[in-house]
Amino acid sequence: MTQILSSAPIKKKIIKELKTECKFLIENGIHPYLKVILVGNNPASLVYTASKKKFCEKIGAKCDIITLGENADQKTFLEIITGINQDPNVHGCIIQLPLPAHLSHLDVGKLVSEEKDVDGFHPNNLYAVLSNQISTDHFVSCTPKGIITLLMEYNVEIANKRVAIIGRSMIVGKPLACLFTNHDATVTLCHSKTPNIREITKECDIIVSAVGIAHLIDQSFISNKKNQVVIDVGMNTDTNGQLCGDVDFEKVKDHVLAITPVPGGVGPMTIISLAQNLLQASKNRLSL
Amino acid sequence: MTQILSSAPIKKKIIKELKTECKFLIENGIHPYLKVILVGNNPASLVYTASKKKFCEKIGAKCDIITLGENADQKTFLEIITGINQDPNVHGCIIQLPLPAHLSHLDVGKLVSEEKDVDGFHPNNLYAVLSNQISTDHFVSCTPKGIITLLMEYNVEIANKRVAIIGRSMIVGKPLACLFTNHDATVTLCHSKTPNIREITKECDIIVSAVGIAHLIDQSFISNKKNQVVIDVGMNTDTNGQLCGDVDFEKVKDHVLAITPVPGGVGPMTIISLAQNLLQASKNRLSL
Repeated sequence: MTQILSSAPIKKKIIKELKTECKFLIENGIHPYLKVILVGNNPASLVYTASKKKFCEKIGAKCDIITLGENADQKTFLEIITGINQDPNVHGCIIQLPLPAHLSHLDVGKLVSEEKDVDGFHPNNLYAVLSNQISTDHFVSCTPKGIITLLMEYNVEIANKRVAIIGRSMIVGKPLACLFTNHDATVTLCHSKTPNIREITKECDIIVSAVGIAHLIDQSFISNKKNQVVIDVGMNTDTNGQLCGDVDFEKVKDHVLAITPVPGGVGPMTIISLAQNLLQASKNRLSL
Repeated sequence: MTQILSSAPIKKKIIKELKTECKFLIENGIHPYLKVILVGNNPASLVYTASKKKFCEKIGAKCDIITLGENADQKTFLEIITGINQDPNVHGCIIQLPLPAHLSHLDVGKLVSEEKDVDGFHPNNLYAVLSNQISTDHFVSCTPKGIITLLMEYNVEIANKRVAIIGRSMIVGKPLACLFTNHDATVTLCHSKTPNIREITKECDIIVSAVGIAHLIDQSFISNKKNQVVIDVGMNTDTNGQLCGDVDFEKVKDHVLAITPVPGGVGPMTIISLAQNLLQASKNRLSL
């Protein structure tokens, strides 16, 4: 029987932990507070930011979504971030991606200050991930962190395993490759220029797809040993307008050991990581 | 016939370029100046630092080796680096590794200021490598940079190729994996916890060994197609006290398409990269 790596039981457990932690912080004068900056009206971004706010409020943290128009000028945008960086009552800040074209040249990793960068995009946070020196002062990118949490909660072994990651983005593929390496896995980072990608994925114990192409991963990527774990990071829309992952779930599921569903797999884990990072950032203020 | 990827012809060509560039900088009031900090009497470090100084002077740059005793205290060590960071006449600074045990807890990547970090160890320099946003303001780690230069000078194709890197250090394996990925290669980063490593190396077009074990890589790591390129980063001593690489050159050379020798392969490329970085750092002062 294939194991479905649903985030639901983990979410339930971690929400309980985070509520307790949030209560403790509030009792000690720190009310965890996240600011989300949303520029424009990208429909997916509206959904994601609303989910983040809802989750924060569920655990007892505060969250504001600062909505700027599609044509918001760079100066205003940067001033808002500077204000947040300087505000001692705000503990975390994220800039919802993608940004409109006229702001997309900005290196978002360098805008939010290191200690409020709960998205884990700041150079110093990524350096900690790359160099395997992650302390409580650092924030690990939410999706990669969530994937590791998911695997650990389901007792999927990582050390000594081979991992194929498809997709080399700075928000998923690259930091995830570092995290898996830190956990003693052997990673092959695949991308659009990888020849014979199926030969690689068939040999690996864990396959992660973070490409953004609906139903890209079918049975041809999977070995016939029914011993692989498939992690689907995709959040795509199928031809019927339904949310779907990179993996053709129905075609793949009976040929693997375990697989994440979409929805209900990696997506909620990303939000859980964000909340964990926010509480960590808040706790770091406590010790100041 | 196996191609021997010797650094000698590249060195000759690049020295000529660097001499011209150095002359130009001096004529414009900038005399490129490197400070090398050496703590203790590690015999290999003495050789390496002397080679770096010699190379700098050969191209017309200045180089001082600041030698501190094995027991130099941390305060003195850090004060020297701070002084160098603040000195406008010094353009590059490197701390020779390894440091003695009582200083090894320091994160050397964060000591030398970003704009003088010609070793490419600073978080912002590594971030540029990881995010594929390398500009003239950034310095790429010397050994990884030198390996890419060597391959490009010998017209070895990198894009669309599979690369196995053995060794996950912050000075070779990890930044090199990023560079190869930036060049559209597909990298598998192997290490001491990689099972069946030979199965991986046999499938790859390029094999890089950066492990530090004499003669580790023998024919069992190589496919029988005679189509692989082997890069040997090792600088080890064999049982006769002779310098040797990670690769058993004699046993491997007839079974591959191309291979770097030791000495005369990657080692000199590392020093060339350092000199290139130093001149870049000096040139960056020019535009201030």
